[in-house]
Amino acid sequence: MSEMVNHQIKLVARPEGLPKSSDFSYEQAPVGEPGDGEILIKVCYISLDPAMRGWMRDVKSYIEPVPLGGVMRAGGVGKVITSNNAKFAVGSYVTGMTGAQEYTISDGVGLVSVDPTKANLTTFLGTLGMPGMTAYFGILDVCQLKEGDTVVVSGAAGAVGSVVGQIAKIKGCTVVGIAGSPAKCAYVTDDLGFDSCVNYKEGDLFKNIREHCPKGIDVYFDNVGGETLDVVLAQIRRGARIGICGAISQYNNTDGVVGPKNYLALLVQRATMSGFVVFDYAKRYGEGVRDIATWLAQGKMVTREHVVDGLETFPETLNMLFSGGNSGKLVIKVADPD
Amino acid sequence: MSEMVNHQIKLVARPEGLPKSSDFSYEQAPVGEPGDGEILIKVCYISLDPAMRGWMRDVKSYIEPVPLGGVMRAGGVGKVITSNNAKFAVGSYVTGMTGAQEYTISDGVGLVSVDPTKANLTTFLGTLGMPGMTAYFGILDVCQLKEGDTVVVSGAAGAVGSVVGQIAKIKGCTVVGIAGSPAKCAYVTDDLGFDSCVNYKEGDLFKNIREHCPKGIDVYFDNVGGETLDVVLAQIRRGARIGICGAISQYNNTDGVVGPKNYLALLVQRATMSGFVVFDYAKRYGEGVRDIATWLAQGKMVTREHVVDGLETFPETLNMLFSGGNSGKLVIKVADPD
Repeated sequence: MSEMVNHQIKLVARPEGLPKSSDFSYEQAPVGEPGDGEILIKVCYISLDPAMRGWMRDVKSYIEPVPLGGVMRAGGVGKVITSNNAKFAVGSYVTGMTGAQEYTISDGVGLVSVDPTKANLTTFLGTLGMPGMTAYFGILDVCQLKEGDTVVVSGAAGAVGSVVGQIAKIKGCTVVGIAGSPAKCAYVTDDLGFDSCVNYKEGDLFKNIREHCPKGIDVYFDNVGGETLDVVLAQIRRGARIGICGAISQYNNTDGVVGPKNYLALLVQRATMSGFVVFDYAKRYGEGVRDIATWLAQGKMVTREHVVDGLETFPETLNMLFSGGNSGKLVIKVADPD
Repeated sequence: MSEMVNHQIKLVARPEGLPKSSDFSYEQAPVGEPGDGEILIKVCYISLDPAMRGWMRDVKSYIEPVPLGGVMRAGGVGKVITSNNAKFAVGSYVTGMTGAQEYTISDGVGLVSVDPTKANLTTFLGTLGMPGMTAYFGILDVCQLKEGDTVVVSGAAGAVGSVVGQIAKIKGCTVVGIAGSPAKCAYVTDDLGFDSCVNYKEGDLFKNIREHCPKGIDVYFDNVGGETLDVVLAQIRRGARIGICGAISQYNNTDGVVGPKNYLALLVQRATMSGFVVFDYAKRYGEGVRDIATWLAQGKMVTREHVVDGLETFPETLNMLFSGGNSGKLVIKVADPD
């Protein structure tokens, strides 16, 4: 065991603007031995998330920054290959914060067992994982979704947005997605079943949204911030609820975040803009997993993961999130699950 | 009666930036005769409010814009001098949307009788009027004030802010005001009883607020927008509530509103920013008037009105709101109340 090598992605510089390859190193370390109560996990897939950009920043936030020289924080799913912990059997699969590496040793805190016969392992990083939970509690709890609402979702083809819109359809809403290419828009309407989808890179975004929301917008689930948020604010209805999940358009700005200049629409429309962090719902993940798993099993919801091979591709693969190169939940395959 | 002259302030141009004298005209019209069910009111005082700037703008909002050539919309308090309506006796006093003029004829809809023995007539335009109701429902209902909260109020010496902070003190909160001069700050702490007050025109606003809110801010009642909103956002605590009442720093910008670049603090701190319009609480004004009148009578709350003489001063007096020239509720005395 002590001769096994653990390849790792470490953060070696704090990115300015878009993360570069030189902000990371691909290194080797010994795997080490799990101690009392610990398990050794072979990481099979890691999750690539927009939130990672925030974790690289050296500022106080909802979670500690990744230290320079530290293994990059990442959610992952893997196989237990050694176990000194009765809760996790050798050969079983778990998900949790594994880090961007081939192996990790864990005392089990924060790990969840997953059943690979119930869904693809990658789905536990997407629709049945953090992104799914973010979508579920964000749209139902934070945005207080009601039947009949007109709902707009940005990042509609992404890991979170795709689930948000499908939940809103299940709940009887009119759902308009916003995405960044004709192919993504087709995926959003044809596969995910949104009522319509607007390509924000083409034509007049305000008019294109208006066309699909002639009575205005009741709920906006925002993953992108920037101009899109302003365009939506200008079209909210009385009592609208805006859930701020993220602002991917702003994460790599070197001259700071651009604030929503139309925020006074909140006053005119007696509307509310709320931020949230999915970790606050940890005690209720069971509800979300149960409902989403049911919808998947019933065929009321579909899921798609975009799998890129090889841990060493981490820097370039991460940037697909910012260039819009992925469609569906972006994951890296680190090792075969068997 | 038909020979009586009604002086009026009319809006004759839509202001760009700060309103100018030439945007208004001071005109004469016949008073006219009240018809069936109508009353003739001699306007004694009119209210000058930041919201007026919005009413002059030719855009869709929570209320119709004042038409060009129309009498400027204004709340007022006046004496009934002719009555064809049993609900309003000659010699009694009423408050409502009188307009910026010496006389108005009304069918009584939207008018409220006031008792001049209970408070100064001007107080019915301030602490017992719209500004008071705005403060009451804004801080208690929109901001969900809780005992022990650290509360920051901008425009603290103004008609709304002064009431907001006093209510928060009554409810057992730590209250920090923000105002624009040493004299206003002294008024806010010494007369209104806030725990402290920061002069936003002096020194480092961030540090000065931090000093008085070392644990961060639970509730922010915002009358000003702009940089102050950003400075506060950077210091909110987990679960903070921000009530957007107005944004006086932005109303005269000719190149548009500046949005809050720190709005992602809402996400990090799981916070909420809500807009509101006091008119939505019309059915509950009774609660607000009852509580505020009680606090005034008990000496737990004080009120100050800044009275300027003469309807013809309307354009210059209005601009005192934007230059910070007033302290307390700004009103124009149009005529003697007797």
